[in-house]
Amino acid sequence: MRARADFAVVNGGQVLTVAGGRRPKAGPAMRDLEILTNAYVAAFRGVIVDVGPQADFRSRVDMESEAALIDAAGGVVAPGFVDPHTHLVFAGWREMEFGQRLSGAPYMDILKAGGGIISTVAKTRAASERDLLQAVLGRLDTAMSWGTTTMEAKSGYGLTTQSELKLLRVLADAGSAHPVEVVPTFMGAHAVPPEFKGDPDGYVDLVVEEMIPAVAGAGLARFTDVFCEEGVFTAEQSRRMLLEAKRYGMGAKAHCDELAPSGGAEIAAEVGAVSAEHLLMASDDGLEMMKGAGCVAVLLPVAPFFLGKDRYAPARKMIDMGLAVALATDFNPGTSTAQGLPLVMTLAMARMGMTAEECFSAATINAACAVGLGDTVGSLETGKWADLAVFGAEDYREIPYRFGANLAKWVIKKGRVVAGEGAAVRRG
Amino acid sequence: MRARADFAVVNGGQVLTVAGGRRPKAGPAMRDLEILTNAYVAAFRGVIVDVGPQADFRSRVDMESEAALIDAAGGVVAPGFVDPHTHLVFAGWREMEFGQRLSGAPYMDILKAGGGIISTVAKTRAASERDLLQAVLGRLDTAMSWGTTTMEAKSGYGLTTQSELKLLRVLADAGSAHPVEVVPTFMGAHAVPPEFKGDPDGYVDLVVEEMIPAVAGAGLARFTDVFCEEGVFTAEQSRRMLLEAKRYGMGAKAHCDELAPSGGAEIAAEVGAVSAEHLLMASDDGLEMMKGAGCVAVLLPVAPFFLGKDRYAPARKMIDMGLAVALATDFNPGTSTAQGLPLVMTLAMARMGMTAEECFSAATINAACAVGLGDTVGSLETGKWADLAVFGAEDYREIPYRFGANLAKWVIKKGRVVAGEGAAVRRG
Repeated sequence: MRARADFAVVNGGQVLTVAGGRRPKAGPAMRDLEILTNAYVAAFRGVIVDVGPQADFRSRVDMESEAALIDAAGGVVAPGFVDPHTHLVFAGWREMEFGQRLSGAPYMDILKAGGGIISTVAKTRAASERDLLQAVLGRLDTAMSWGTTTMEAKSGYGLTTQSELKLLRVLADAGSAHPVEVVPTFMGAHAVPPEFKGDPDGYVDLVVEEMIPAVAGAGLARFTDVFCEEGVFTAEQSRRMLLEAKRYGMGAKAHCDELAPSGGAEIAAEVGAVSAEHLLMASDDGLEMMKGAGCVAVLLPVAPFFLGKDRYAPARKMIDMGLAVALATDFNPGTSTAQGLPLVMTLAMARMGMTAEECFSAATINAACAVGLGDTVGSLETGKWADLAVFGAEDYREIPYRFGANLAKWVIKKGRVVAGEGAAVRRG
Repeated sequence: MRARADFAVVNGGQVLTVAGGRRPKAGPAMRDLEILTNAYVAAFRGVIVDVGPQADFRSRVDMESEAALIDAAGGVVAPGFVDPHTHLVFAGWREMEFGQRLSGAPYMDILKAGGGIISTVAKTRAASERDLLQAVLGRLDTAMSWGTTTMEAKSGYGLTTQSELKLLRVLADAGSAHPVEVVPTFMGAHAVPPEFKGDPDGYVDLVVEEMIPAVAGAGLARFTDVFCEEGVFTAEQSRRMLLEAKRYGMGAKAHCDELAPSGGAEIAAEVGAVSAEHLLMASDDGLEMMKGAGCVAVLLPVAPFFLGKDRYAPARKMIDMGLAVALATDFNPGTSTAQGLPLVMTLAMARMGMTAEECFSAATINAACAVGLGDTVGSLETGKWADLAVFGAEDYREIPYRFGANLAKWVIKKGRVVAGEGAAVRRG
């Protein structure tokens, strides 16, 4: 029997299903790309119903009369990118600090001069929900134009119960209004706010006793993230917050081991976090524990590039030991302004030694696993959402290779063209 | 008397005239940006007739009834970028080599396997003029969308008299058909072609005796460039070719000292070249000679980033000694696929220690001087072409800061909107 379809992309010169290879029981791992040459992807009501060689299209797919058909004309078809780590909701860029940091000004001096994360916190607290929502929708448009169809987004520039809830409401509203699926993460433990200077335990009490119950009660976050790092939150404080979040039904994620070994990878594995991020300085034991726990390593190469440090997470070691590696933009106002995954992939190849194939797995299926959506997005397989991007390229390797170029011609979310020619207008 | 105008950009929150600072007699140097806050730029028949504070607009400018007016709405207005070093005309990308090179394959092995520059030469020789022109026009569109209004473009993937002439004809046709001003450079001495393997002197004879006279006779190039580098052309061979080109009325440029000190900076200064490029390994003497000769240092940070080498030209030393530094994309199919100057500026800040202010001078006035157009473009001054870009940014520092983002809202060439809302359709 032929599969009934209301949408198809045909004549894909290379269709990257990212459905091949091994997927060990313990958790997601680097999968083979599985490249079909001259192939199609068909969907019905937003869900993929068939993927196969172009020659079989007519015999295997029953297109409805009103069905939408995209002719990829030999281009590359890939799963829509999943960006598993962003700080999407904030007010104010910090372009002044870029030059300051690169010329060697210590971050602590920048903080003292009223810059750094605390300046973003002040502006974000003062911003209206309406202005924040407009900014977030524009940023989602940009990311989508690069091929992103799912994006994790953290709060964390409020640092009071009320303002953190405000940021999470903005993310909820943005997720409803925009085609990109927004995975909201509560990150009250992003920094110790000025009000709790010298009393991080007092702030952890607030996160545990007031914020987590309030966020969970309002159903505003799927995950809780913490910044487990020397000078921010300790491993013990991080464990306490993440375990409390899990008690309230949220998943756990952790920023850790970015600047110094903090025991964060170990904690992430121990509490069953879905992912740990940054990981430049993670211990080998911590990485082994993550592997055993099926915890994805989310790598963020733009931040060290941007900070002029040029020291990166040991991606090759992680991949070679069988740890699942994902790539993310880390989009934020201070240390990573990039919105497109192709640019992150270029950096991952040029500076972390990843292959183009590993980059695609890392920005699709592994990233999906890093936000708990490995069963619904991140690869082109029957039963998953029809989230995909069609690129004006003859070979998938052109995509990370063309530095800064956006080759996405069409972006499709749940079987609907959302960017590129003929895209449905989103609003207004 | 008020200046008559048929075009104006008004309400520029920051207008970067790049007209301030010092310009020593010996040649162009790093100029101060000169930032006017809340200002306008007015033009008549493509030429700037006034730049001034917004409050004076009505009293100083007499707008014609059919005049075009762009409201920058507080955004940044800057001179259109000048890209002073590109290899715009070629067939075929070399995305396969990107991963090979980064995983450590020696370039010589890639060459032996049929890759490297010789593979581009083979494809470019085989390509039709029509196909090359289509590709070049598309690339010019992309560069223009990033704010580039003038671009140097080299031949050099033909390496026979006939095919080099073909490439230069394509550049001439592209320059006529496209709003971006194309500055054509003959670079027959880009590599020793397979036909002359082991006989570089024989190829230099051909360049000198046949190619340069033919190119000059057809009036197809303003400059001649040579690749003066160990294993390519010697300083002596380079001198011979550049002097011959000058005898035929062309200006001189030189790729040199990229991989090893080649005496190229010295030769460039000695023959009175308008610029020398790459210069990672240039000697201090060579740089001093360049400064004395008013020869601009054109720096190309994308190439070492892309090659995974992360060793860059000593930009700080050059600037601190008073040498004029320009930035370029080095756009080519093998080692730099970037088309936008903002991305190059991000790299120049993050990896070469340049300031945002230096980056703007380097991508506008100094770049204009590096292609012999310092008197007509590269700054916003009365009498120069009205080439400018209007950015959706509140501060010019956002432009290099927003990694990979294209903030250009309008691009104007000779007083006409050529990219952005309301742009005149170029062709078809």
